[in-house]
Amino acid sequence: MTEPHRPDPAAETPHPHSAEEYDPSASSLTGHVDPSVMAELLSIRSSIDNFDATLVYLLAERFKVTQRVGFLKAKHHLPPADPDREAAQIARLRRLAEEAQLDPAFAEKFLNFIISEVIRHHQAIAEDHGQGTVGQRSTGQAHSDAGA
Amino acid sequence: MTEPHRPDPAAETPHPHSAEEYDPSASSLTGHVDPSVMAELLSIRSSIDNFDATLVYLLAERFKVTQRVGFLKAKHHLPPADPDREAAQIARLRRLAEEAQLDPAFAEKFLNFIISEVIRHHQAIAEDHGQGTVGQRSTGQAHSDAGA
Repeated sequence: MTEPHRPDPAAETPHPHSAEEYDPSASSLTGHVDPSVMAELLSIRSSIDNFDATLVYLLAERFKVTQRVGFLKAKHHLPPADPDREAAQIARLRRLAEEAQLDPAFAEKFLNFIISEVIRHHQAIAEDHGQGTVGQRSTGQAHSDAGA
Repeated sequence: MTEPHRPDPAAETPHPHSAEEYDPSASSLTGHVDPSVMAELLSIRSSIDNFDATLVYLLAERFKVTQRVGFLKAKHHLPPADPDREAAQIARLRRLAEEAQLDPAFAEKFLNFIISEVIRHHQAIAEDHGQGTVGQRSTGQAHSDAGA
């Protein structure tokens, strides 16, 4: 495996498992599958890997932007939650999901997943700063405007 | 609100709530916030809306690709799960998350969220076809190769 990012898809050689080095051909199926099938599988998986990298970078950027909303709300003493905004976001994402042939219920769950995760992280930050239980105007609570 | 997709961010006019029409200025804060602050908030939110649309379309495409893996595995009677592949995916996403300044734990949860959702959806499809409990080689179980 001299070129870990451009492996021979049909190779059945053992793959290294180090934390630093990604092996796109890592598979429990190696050696149990016809090489041509494995080559097709790895070809599809290379697309999945590209989607996943894009998703990670996109999510990272989205959270940077919601953090800006958090700071803005903290500065102007605005409540973290905005129910009318969230309702509009959910309705829009469901509609976009339908257009993209994605399950609208999944799109809604996805948005709620992001919101709940960021709230959890930011509540932890607020607690670190001793601001977790004070009121609507702590930085931590403003951070929890995750859907924004 | 004659141009719902290009509203005056500082406008405090009432916003319509129809299922068909998205109002990017929808907010429970309307009328309670200085117009200049509201304008800044809506400006940031327009970026969030763009990220969310991108995420929805990207996720839709990712699921199309994992479905191809599902069909391939079903065709060649391969098991749906691939533990070595999943371990490599998780390690890679955590590393990419660090590079993107995203919480690696969140990246891992995100991947698991996608996988579990698609498994749930595809198990439902398998049950519709009466294939949910047969064995490793049903189409439904092959579909559950969500992480792929």
